[in-house]
Amino acid sequence: MARRACIISIGNEVVHGFIVNTNSAWLARELAELGFDVAYHLAVSDREDDLAYRLKTALSEGLLVVTTGGIGPTVDDRTRQAASRALGLELKLDHDALARLHERYAAMGRKFPEGSERQCMRPEGAAFIPNAFGTASCFLLRQGEGGIAVLPGVPRELKGIWAEEMRAAIIEQFGIGQRYYSRELRVFGIPESDLDLRVKTLLESREAEGAILVDDAVMRLRWRLPAEDQAEADKVLQPILDAARAELGDLVFAEGDVELETSTVKLLAEKGLRVACAESCTGGMIAHLLTNVPGSSDVLVESAVTYSNAAKVKRLGVKQATLDAHGAVSEQTVLEMANGLLAQWPDQRPDIVVAVTGIAGPSGGSDDKPVGTVWLAAAMGGQAKAWHLRVPGDRQLVKWRIARTAINTLRLAALHGKLPETITHWVAPPT
Amino acid sequence: MARRACIISIGNEVVHGFIVNTNSAWLARELAELGFDVAYHLAVSDREDDLAYRLKTALSEGLLVVTTGGIGPTVDDRTRQAASRALGLELKLDHDALARLHERYAAMGRKFPEGSERQCMRPEGAAFIPNAFGTASCFLLRQGEGGIAVLPGVPRELKGIWAEEMRAAIIEQFGIGQRYYSRELRVFGIPESDLDLRVKTLLESREAEGAILVDDAVMRLRWRLPAEDQAEADKVLQPILDAARAELGDLVFAEGDVELETSTVKLLAEKGLRVACAESCTGGMIAHLLTNVPGSSDVLVESAVTYSNAAKVKRLGVKQATLDAHGAVSEQTVLEMANGLLAQWPDQRPDIVVAVTGIAGPSGGSDDKPVGTVWLAAAMGGQAKAWHLRVPGDRQLVKWRIARTAINTLRLAALHGKLPETITHWVAPPT
Repeated sequence: MARRACIISIGNEVVHGFIVNTNSAWLARELAELGFDVAYHLAVSDREDDLAYRLKTALSEGLLVVTTGGIGPTVDDRTRQAASRALGLELKLDHDALARLHERYAAMGRKFPEGSERQCMRPEGAAFIPNAFGTASCFLLRQGEGGIAVLPGVPRELKGIWAEEMRAAIIEQFGIGQRYYSRELRVFGIPESDLDLRVKTLLESREAEGAILVDDAVMRLRWRLPAEDQAEADKVLQPILDAARAELGDLVFAEGDVELETSTVKLLAEKGLRVACAESCTGGMIAHLLTNVPGSSDVLVESAVTYSNAAKVKRLGVKQATLDAHGAVSEQTVLEMANGLLAQWPDQRPDIVVAVTGIAGPSGGSDDKPVGTVWLAAAMGGQAKAWHLRVPGDRQLVKWRIARTAINTLRLAALHGKLPETITHWVAPPT
Repeated sequence: MARRACIISIGNEVVHGFIVNTNSAWLARELAELGFDVAYHLAVSDREDDLAYRLKTALSEGLLVVTTGGIGPTVDDRTRQAASRALGLELKLDHDALARLHERYAAMGRKFPEGSERQCMRPEGAAFIPNAFGTASCFLLRQGEGGIAVLPGVPRELKGIWAEEMRAAIIEQFGIGQRYYSRELRVFGIPESDLDLRVKTLLESREAEGAILVDDAVMRLRWRLPAEDQAEADKVLQPILDAARAELGDLVFAEGDVELETSTVKLLAEKGLRVACAESCTGGMIAHLLTNVPGSSDVLVESAVTYSNAAKVKRLGVKQATLDAHGAVSEQTVLEMANGLLAQWPDQRPDIVVAVTGIAGPSGGSDDKPVGTVWLAAAMGGQAKAWHLRVPGDRQLVKWRIARTAINTLRLAALHGKLPETITHWVAPPT
């Protein structure tokens, strides 16, 4: 019989719409990996009576209820109480956990906050799930076919605890059921409609369920099917993925849950390549994304975030005359930025540099150079090249898209050992 | 009596977690504007029986159910059927709507797709809600206190139809109820538990509903109450906000929907102050956050993302001897970074600089300097100062917390015209 689960997000901020609930989607995918069929997601306020009723209903249907939120130190946090009522089990204080929490505050040199002992309570018999990411401990209890797994609402904490503790605890108590196995490719550099056309027949495979999932410019091509294990699923999935890779070539930057920057830093490290950036309109975002990846310190020499023209002159040796004649957003300036950055490093020269300058908006645009006008340059092995882009979107989206395009440029240069021809579809129309 | 609503999102893509549900949060805020108290959000698959049961339950509780999704042309789309069963009303084909849909396809030069007539069906007596953004027509029906409002799942269509048609139709059938008015303060620099203690009596106000909403280190203190208009609500809310501000002082960085970086850039611009950063462990994130704010080009001179030691020496004039003797993560190094950055600008000197160096992890820590060890320095008006921090969390969280702390340091320095004493609660215990 199929194992079923539901996800309950607890907190006024979600119900009132002040926070977009990203936890439920993430948990649904994780639960599917463990063979649970997710029946529904629910978001409710932290009213104890209502919550206890919802939990009890789900338990009576044999569901594993995964809750997020409402386990902090304040009196508003009612999940522990509601779970204990729904399960019909007394709420107990874990003195060992409390002692460790006291130690933790002591180690941080902070006073133990009043009420924090609440975070060490759980229903009698529930398994203790430690929280290395915050102060609120979690728990798991199986009851019949279903049970309750209690997690915090802060996405980072939730994901950390899931990966390190809760996932294994659920497998221990429930085993692994009939699982869906999926594989996905990640794609950057073409519009969704083009991607759809190029892999249409593969997406309509009768053997696996295919989908394009879009996170703006980064697209995920996913196929899934129910199978006994990954090896059985791969008999179907591998030929599909091979065909997709053959069609898409270097537009595919990774398989699986891998960010573009992670894939890029890994590739650079494997090839022993060091990079540097000169950022104007991205304002540090290229470096920020690259340094999100552990190990980026072996790869990134520096990023000169030269937001003012004075900094472009001082830090990169861009000529004031060039800025005066062509403006900060021009082919001449971006090439001087890239070449000037390299010239700063007569020794220990970075292998690849990338430079960007553009108009992120909302102001600063003109008829000639509207918001979204960007020049991107790269230099490698004595060559330099500039691309003229026209990137749609508001300020943050423009930054995001240019930063990813710059990182993709580094990836393609590292992959092919030379500057690429095509880095994105956001190429400006010829003037 | 309070009017209540719930939001039901229909579709496998949401329940399986392949799409993050942003519609529910958006609709919750819109419904609050119309005076509806949202009881819950639910996401379910398009199984007709289950959906009909959920709709019936909500109707029996007197809720206005707003559904999204499941109204397209395919046989999987079951929302119309389920609504008709829950309401106990026959599903009827709207021949006028069908004729218009035929015309529409003819105008596009496309063949009328098989099954598309389903999109023109609605329960008998339900008001027709046209869809100018897609092919699926919508409907609204009041039944007693509650009713059903049916909308598509595609966010762009949903928002368009809501704004152009559904909102007005709901007002016509339900009137405008008692609206909630809210105000909120944003706080940075103390733990949630401390904030809770300091404003406990204010949060427990009998006149307004208070809450702490936490987005990691940035906290929102919100109060709301039903009122006729903002002016009436402010009679209650203003004294509460004044009292909270008096208690919290410069821990409050803004009122309303304002990010810490936005508030900081605005303050710097008002005071005519220009800043520069020297970033190691934050890897560009400080500059990235500041440059998310329109107008930051008037404020940010540069950020030197000196990720390698070589870059610290070359770009900031940090002495190799200092790095050798004390390490990159030390009071000596961070002060040389801050002072060295200033020294790069003999003219056009930035008014405030901030420098950070630390161990973001997961590797690089030691007994002496564990992951999360950070030195932050600021310089202003001929003075420099360094803080030793111990920041909990994984790599990304550490970056995020340090970047916000650095921005808060700039804010406090600008606010008081001098370097602050206290910038965060993540102070390392004395060694």
